[in-house]
Amino acid sequence: MDGTPRNEDALTALMTMLRPDIEACNAVIMGKMASPVALIPRLAAHIIAAGGKRLRPLLTMAAARMCGYDPAGQRHVVLAACVEFIHTATLLHDDVVDESALRRGQASANALFGNQASVLVGDFLFARSFQLMIQDGSLPVMAILAGASATIAEGEVLQLMTQNDTGTTEEQYLEVIHGKTAALFAAAARLGAVVAGRPMAEEEALDAYGRNLGVAFQLVDDALDYAADQAVLGKTVGDDFREGKISLPVIVAFARGDEAQRLFWRRTLEEGEQGEDDLAEAQRLITRHGALAETFARARDYGAAALTALAIFPDSAEKRALAAVVDYCIERAR
Amino acid sequence: MDGTPRNEDALTALMTMLRPDIEACNAVIMGKMASPVALIPRLAAHIIAAGGKRLRPLLTMAAARMCGYDPAGQRHVVLAACVEFIHTATLLHDDVVDESALRRGQASANALFGNQASVLVGDFLFARSFQLMIQDGSLPVMAILAGASATIAEGEVLQLMTQNDTGTTEEQYLEVIHGKTAALFAAAARLGAVVAGRPMAEEEALDAYGRNLGVAFQLVDDALDYAADQAVLGKTVGDDFREGKISLPVIVAFARGDEAQRLFWRRTLEEGEQGEDDLAEAQRLITRHGALAETFARARDYGAAALTALAIFPDSAEKRALAAVVDYCIERAR
Repeated sequence: MDGTPRNEDALTALMTMLRPDIEACNAVIMGKMASPVALIPRLAAHIIAAGGKRLRPLLTMAAARMCGYDPAGQRHVVLAACVEFIHTATLLHDDVVDESALRRGQASANALFGNQASVLVGDFLFARSFQLMIQDGSLPVMAILAGASATIAEGEVLQLMTQNDTGTTEEQYLEVIHGKTAALFAAAARLGAVVAGRPMAEEEALDAYGRNLGVAFQLVDDALDYAADQAVLGKTVGDDFREGKISLPVIVAFARGDEAQRLFWRRTLEEGEQGEDDLAEAQRLITRHGALAETFARARDYGAAALTALAIFPDSAEKRALAAVVDYCIERAR
Repeated sequence: MDGTPRNEDALTALMTMLRPDIEACNAVIMGKMASPVALIPRLAAHIIAAGGKRLRPLLTMAAARMCGYDPAGQRHVVLAACVEFIHTATLLHDDVVDESALRRGQASANALFGNQASVLVGDFLFARSFQLMIQDGSLPVMAILAGASATIAEGEVLQLMTQNDTGTTEEQYLEVIHGKTAALFAAAARLGAVVAGRPMAEEEALDAYGRNLGVAFQLVDDALDYAADQAVLGKTVGDDFREGKISLPVIVAFARGDEAQRLFWRRTLEEGEQGEDDLAEAQRLITRHGALAETFARARDYGAAALTALAIFPDSAEKRALAAVVDYCIERAR
C-alpha cells in the first residue's frame, strides 16, 4: 500500500473527508442521548465527549462511502451512532468496580455512585441504540449489531474468567479480544456494505477487515499498558497489571520466564500481592523477554490481514483512508 | 369481578391452563441462555431458576391466548422469553445498583459472582433478548420492548437521583415506579394483543392493564419492605430503608410527621446514619401514620384500574385469570 497516507495525518484526512457525515453523526448522538432524566445526558455526554477518535463509527461511515452508498442517504450516519452508543455502553459497564475492590479501599463512596449510574446509563444507551436500529428498520442490520453485542458480553465474561489466572493460554486470550473488541469493529465496518446493498462477499471482506483491525488495535492497547509514556498517551500505564488481567505481553513473558519469574507473576497477578516496584519489574521482564516486540509483531500481522481483506475493493480515497486507519492503530505504539 | 378465582389459587389455575406454553417458554429460556462461556449459563440459571413466578412472561402468554392468538403459534412463547430475559437483566443490574444481599431468598448473583459478572451477564441476556426479537421479525414488537428497556433505565436512574432525598414528591416516586416496574408489565401484556393482530384499542387496553398492575405490584412491594415477615417473603425487610430509597410509605410518614420525626427521616435516609433500632422506629412511624394502609389502598386503586382496562374483552378463562393476577399481586400483602 505504498503512497497511501499514514498514521495520524491519514486519520485527520479521513475525518476531513467525512466531515459532513461526522457532524451529522454527532448530532444524532447528542439528540438521542436526550432524556427527561437529567443525569442520563450529563453522564453520557461526559463519556462520549471525552470520546477519543470515534474510530468505530468512522469505520461504518467510511465503509459505506467506499461501497458507494447513496450520497443523499443518512442511514450510515444513524447506524454509526448506534455503534458508538453500544461502544459507550460497554465502556460504562467496564468501569464498574467489584465489591472486592471496594473492600480493599480502592474506591470511594463516590465510586459507588459511579457504579450505579454507570450501569444504568449504559443500559439506557444500549436500549437507545436498539430503538435507533428499529427506526432504521433493517433486520440484517439489527442481527449484526445484536450479535456483536452478545459476543462482546461473552468476551468480557471470558476475560473475567481468565483474570488472575496465569495459566491462561494465548488461544483463550485471543478469544477474549476477538469478543470484547474485534466483534464491534467487524460489525461497524460490515454495516457499510449492508447499507450500500453490496453483495455478501463485500460484507464479509469488511467484516474481516474490521475484525483483524480490532484484534490489532487491542494487541497494541495491551502492549501499551506496559510500555507507554503515561503523559503522552493520557492513559494510565499498569491498569491491566493492577487488575490481574492476563494479556499477551504477560503470557509471552510468563512462557519465556524461569521458575523465579513465574513465581513473581503468580504472586502479583494471581494472588494480587503487589508492592511499589512490581509494575517496574513486570515491565523489565516483559521487555527482557521481547514480549512487547512479539505483541507488536502480532498486531502487524493482524493489520496486514486487515489490509488484505480490503483487496477486493477498487481503489478510492475511502479505501486508502481505511488502509491508513490500520497504520494509525498500529503506529500508536511509536 | 365476583366469582372469579382469587389470589394464589388463581395464579396456580392460570399456570395450569398455560402449562404447555410455560414449558415451551422455559425451553426457549434455557436454550437461549446457552453460551460457550460457561459462567454465563451458570449465572443466568442461578437467577432464572431461582424463578419467582415468571409473572411478566405469564402476562404475555395469557394475553395472547385471551386475544385468540393462533393455537398452533409459538411467537407469544418466544416473546415471553424475551420479556423474562429483559427482566432478568434488570435484576442482575439492580443487584449491582442496590448492593442487596438477598434476591428471591437466595444470595444475590453479585454476592456470589461479583458485580462485574452480574453486569456482563445482564448485558448478554439483554443482547440475547434482542436477537430473539429479531428472529421473530416484527418491528412493532421490537419497538415496544426496546422502548420499555429505555424507560426502565430512565426509571432506575431517576430512582438513583431521588435516593437519600426526603424532599422527593409523590409524583416523582410514581414516575420512578412507572419506569422501573410498570413499563415492562405494560409491554408484556401489550405484546399479547400484538402477536394476535388485534386492533390498537386492545393493545392499549392491555398496556393500561399491565401498567396499572405494575404500579400496584411495586406499591405492594414497597409497603412489604417495611411490613413483611422476612422468612415468608424471602426478601430482606428494610432494604429500602438501609439504602435510603424514598418510597411511598416514607413519603406519607414524612408528610404526616412532626419536626422531630422529619429529623429522624433526614438523619437515617439522607445522611445514612442508622443505628440498631432505627428500622424498628421507621416501621413504628410508618404504621402510626397509616402509611402502609395508605400505600395498600393506593395499590388497590391501581389494581381496580387494571381490572377496568380489561372490560373491553369478552369473558374467557384467560380474562378471569388475568383479573385474578391483580388480586394475587395485591393480596401478597396479607
